[in-house]
Amino acid sequence: MATPSSLLLSRADLDFLLHDWLDAGSLTSRERFTEHSRETFDAVLDVCAEIAAERFAPHNKRNDIEEPRFDPTGGGRVVLHDEVRPALDALAGTGLLAATADASVGGLQLPHVVRSACVAWFAAANIATWGYAFLTAANANLLLAHGSDAQIDTWVRPMLEGRFHGTMCLSETQAGSSLADVSTRAEPQDDGTYRLTGTKMWISAGDHELGENIVHLVLAKIPGGPAGVKGISLFVVPKFLAGGADGNPGEHNDVVLAGLNHKMGYRGTTNTVLNLGEGRHTPGGAAGAVGYLVGEPHRGLTYMFHMMNEARIGVGAGAAALGYTAYLKSLDYARTRPQGRPVTGRDPGQPQVPIVEHADVRRMLLAQKSYAEGALALVLYCGRLLDEQETAPEQAGRDRAGLLLDVLTPIAKSWPSQWCLAGNDLAIQVLGGYGYTREYDVEQHYRDNRLNPIHEGTHGIQAIDLLGRRTAAAGGAGLDALDGLLAATIARARAGGDEEAGRYADQLDAARARLMEVTRALHAEPDATVRLANASIHLEAAGHVVLAWIWLEQLLAAGGRDDDLGNGKRAAARYFFHYELPRTGPQLDLLAALDRTTTDLDPSWL
Amino acid sequence: MATPSSLLLSRADLDFLLHDWLDAGSLTSRERFTEHSRETFDAVLDVCAEIAAERFAPHNKRNDIEEPRFDPTGGGRVVLHDEVRPALDALAGTGLLAATADASVGGLQLPHVVRSACVAWFAAANIATWGYAFLTAANANLLLAHGSDAQIDTWVRPMLEGRFHGTMCLSETQAGSSLADVSTRAEPQDDGTYRLTGTKMWISAGDHELGENIVHLVLAKIPGGPAGVKGISLFVVPKFLAGGADGNPGEHNDVVLAGLNHKMGYRGTTNTVLNLGEGRHTPGGAAGAVGYLVGEPHRGLTYMFHMMNEARIGVGAGAAALGYTAYLKSLDYARTRPQGRPVTGRDPGQPQVPIVEHADVRRMLLAQKSYAEGALALVLYCGRLLDEQETAPEQAGRDRAGLLLDVLTPIAKSWPSQWCLAGNDLAIQVLGGYGYTREYDVEQHYRDNRLNPIHEGTHGIQAIDLLGRRTAAAGGAGLDALDGLLAATIARARAGGDEEAGRYADQLDAARARLMEVTRALHAEPDATVRLANASIHLEAAGHVVLAWIWLEQLLAAGGRDDDLGNGKRAAARYFFHYELPRTGPQLDLLAALDRTTTDLDPSWL
Repeated sequence: MATPSSLLLSRADLDFLLHDWLDAGSLTSRERFTEHSRETFDAVLDVCAEIAAERFAPHNKRNDIEEPRFDPTGGGRVVLHDEVRPALDALAGTGLLAATADASVGGLQLPHVVRSACVAWFAAANIATWGYAFLTAANANLLLAHGSDAQIDTWVRPMLEGRFHGTMCLSETQAGSSLADVSTRAEPQDDGTYRLTGTKMWISAGDHELGENIVHLVLAKIPGGPAGVKGISLFVVPKFLAGGADGNPGEHNDVVLAGLNHKMGYRGTTNTVLNLGEGRHTPGGAAGAVGYLVGEPHRGLTYMFHMMNEARIGVGAGAAALGYTAYLKSLDYARTRPQGRPVTGRDPGQPQVPIVEHADVRRMLLAQKSYAEGALALVLYCGRLLDEQETAPEQAGRDRAGLLLDVLTPIAKSWPSQWCLAGNDLAIQVLGGYGYTREYDVEQHYRDNRLNPIHEGTHGIQAIDLLGRRTAAAGGAGLDALDGLLAATIARARAGGDEEAGRYADQLDAARARLMEVTRALHAEPDATVRLANASIHLEAAGHVVLAWIWLEQLLAAGGRDDDLGNGKRAAARYFFHYELPRTGPQLDLLAALDRTTTDLDPSWL
Repeated sequence: MATPSSLLLSRADLDFLLHDWLDAGSLTSRERFTEHSRETFDAVLDVCAEIAAERFAPHNKRNDIEEPRFDPTGGGRVVLHDEVRPALDALAGTGLLAATADASVGGLQLPHVVRSACVAWFAAANIATWGYAFLTAANANLLLAHGSDAQIDTWVRPMLEGRFHGTMCLSETQAGSSLADVSTRAEPQDDGTYRLTGTKMWISAGDHELGENIVHLVLAKIPGGPAGVKGISLFVVPKFLAGGADGNPGEHNDVVLAGLNHKMGYRGTTNTVLNLGEGRHTPGGAAGAVGYLVGEPHRGLTYMFHMMNEARIGVGAGAAALGYTAYLKSLDYARTRPQGRPVTGRDPGQPQVPIVEHADVRRMLLAQKSYAEGALALVLYCGRLLDEQETAPEQAGRDRAGLLLDVLTPIAKSWPSQWCLAGNDLAIQVLGGYGYTREYDVEQHYRDNRLNPIHEGTHGIQAIDLLGRRTAAAGGAGLDALDGLLAATIARARAGGDEEAGRYADQLDAARARLMEVTRALHAEPDATVRLANASIHLEAAGHVVLAWIWLEQLLAAGGRDDDLGNGKRAAARYFFHYELPRTGPQLDLLAALDRTTTDLDPSWL
């Protein structure tokens, strides 16, 4: 079933965020982007909207119903239905897999902020099919940054052309959140390659036949290295070895599909258990899966974090996109579904009104709007920071962008994953019984989105990362940068003459000051157990403060616009400041009290 | 796969709630319950735990995977897999379908509070199979209260024996939340029966072959009656007419299965569209589905509300049970899954610790415990109130119980539906990637539970009912009764000498006073639109205040017990007062401000 692009995202909102707010057009004066213009940005977004609506959305439900299945013939393969590959081929045909890459490797050299907007179209239309492209692009970007020229030629170029696909193989059964416990071994060989043995778990897109080859990026330990995360190295382990001079795949590497995980949602992205070096294949006549070291030994996790930071913002973008499309679909339903009458006059002789007239339905829609548009704005802002980090004319600007990006990454991952999921829950509620059926889309959006607080580092992992590392590093430099960012907007809002914006500036300022005070007090707490006990609450409070800033920014960017978009931004900002930001009060109180409810618990009491 | 009863509910907690807290044994001194004793109560619970674990739990996952399917042969029938009927037959064999009914109709005359505990076992094990029994029992109870002796003999006795099943047919496509818009017509016939024509939507258990007959209770309008809800009458419309003297079913009534709804969860309970009087069958040679009026014309909704109040508390009980079992399963996982190390020393040379050692996992477990045990306590308390309403020695006690029950019903429906669903979400998170797979139970519990905020009156409908009707009725008598209930516990806690309980009493007292003040101010607001605009927020705040009372009650009932159960109750109470009750502060602020964000909105801004 085709879904019009107007039910995926709002193009008017994207234009507002990219141009009225983030001034993406100004980037075209920088050397890296001189080939671009507002027109090329617009054209790229047009193409994305079209492909998303016409190639991705039509099989979104089919991805859920006909999930990838394991075919044991030929030693095990994954069978996908027949609409996935044409969609990915159409996407690859646009060159967008190399959206931000250098022209020298066939890239479009688009700004990250524009690419983020592109991503949102595909994720909104069909997050499971998008998943394959997402992983391939992230894999390619990592190798572009840390791989050798030969690795780039052999593996990256075919990925950017859409001929090869990519994965990231981190987790193992006993090593999910705890990567220190990775036990896959990589034995060095005389020819400079390695032979890997082990089992990788939760590998998305780990097997399929969507292209000619699959390039796995695998974390493994070289015997004799340091214990824990400092002994982890990164390898390219292709499904098929490189073949002849034409670049076609050669011998089957010893990477074997051991099984599929069957998920609550996100079903179209196959999720696999992979055995490396189990002996099914003997490439080159020897045992073990052939792997090629990326960069230096024992630095694998550092390289992987390059990809993971990008992937974490990508997870947030996907969550935002799912929140956005479910919002638009529930809004569409609410405007056309008659049910009930105004509470001021329930005359059964009068016709029923559309449910968008009911205050509680409006609350559920405004909440979704504030979550989805806010989350999308946040991930676009992170894209903009990435552009600043890479291309700002002054070093100080690049450093500041890097600091902000570092602190905002866990929030950009977790906040959309939590609140756009909550938005999906509200979308189901708006549709009522219909929303609970599989005939409508919203329950699938919920189920798909439910993965996002889990993968790429759980909510709890992000929280410890934010409080324990990113805000505390370098004497709290990242936290100070965030503080300065918020303070500048608050000052601008107070000076701007918009009475409502001024009130919200005061409200944000109080929350900002409290957040900073509490975070610094936590940093000063010597007992790590107590310091980090409520890190998740801290992440959630910090997220809501940042999103309040996002909404104040949007309110200011909308200025005095007295059109639907401007009034809508004002209404959503009002919702956020009236209903959402106040949630942080009790959270910050709890944090300030160094609450020990969980640390003092004896598990036998549960 | 068998699930031990210890992963469904905690029998120790049930005993604590029923006896240490609610003193269920004292009921046996009342005339209605003289045949019972602590021993009979225990025996009934033992049987429920056994049947739930051995007959219901083993096919819970199969209900999800092999959902009921439509077989078009023979004019359309529903096919269920083969484990549902034996489970329901085993349940019927215990006599528990007639748990609270009079002995004169074959009932066990158990107290409602004990029956509520029984229900929780079956719902925890397999809510979809339990759904058939739930509807049959609710239907029977309505007819026992409002049906004629002949109707009781013909329809109720076979239902209580498990030979017939029952449904409630309220909704139509255009009349879900708005029952005033029911358009099914009931034409009176010369013989005193009626002929019904119309289409009913969302009818759970609307067709199947689990018994000899299905007794539909149908809302319809007799032509010429008043408009809206005052013109709705209630009819018995059996699938098969009564047959010969042996009571066996006779001719097929014109009730035709038009289709099945395919749900996100709760899949084992078939959900149907039923056509009445479409002409497929012509019982007695005439057109229309034969219906028998229950009670008087135009009083159908009043009778139905009898069933709906019971059903609403039953929905809360089901939600609580799903929250409970997912809590126990995620706790079991957390105690046995090693992952990561303490934040105080991340030496990779040390073995990993069970994740229950991590503070954030404990937070997610304590939250679930506070939601699940709190919700179960609330629904048991409502059962106890029902017993008081029916059997308290003094009229004043019966009246007070009725007032409290009236006010607590929307909370007992909505709070477990919201927070035990949130608990299920946390259970998924505790299990991480495993929790997101269908190999584990918790994602299904979430999907099953997601129905509960929708059916039997949505969250928003309950909210308007609580604020607009139940707390405002009779000059706020119900609200005053609730206030008195809370105040008495607060006084007891302050006088009891437990310092922690005294602090929570003060905290609860402040929230109680604010809730009462705000609720009364809202009652006084003349503009209904503004008064009810944030009714859902009011419902949520009132729910959290009531649950804080539940937790203070449990803390007091646990007294100084220094065992796992007592310490666990204290820990969960502490969690609730530290992390949960403070959420009501911003909610009550918003309500006190008569916030107009939603009412001032122009829908075109969305």
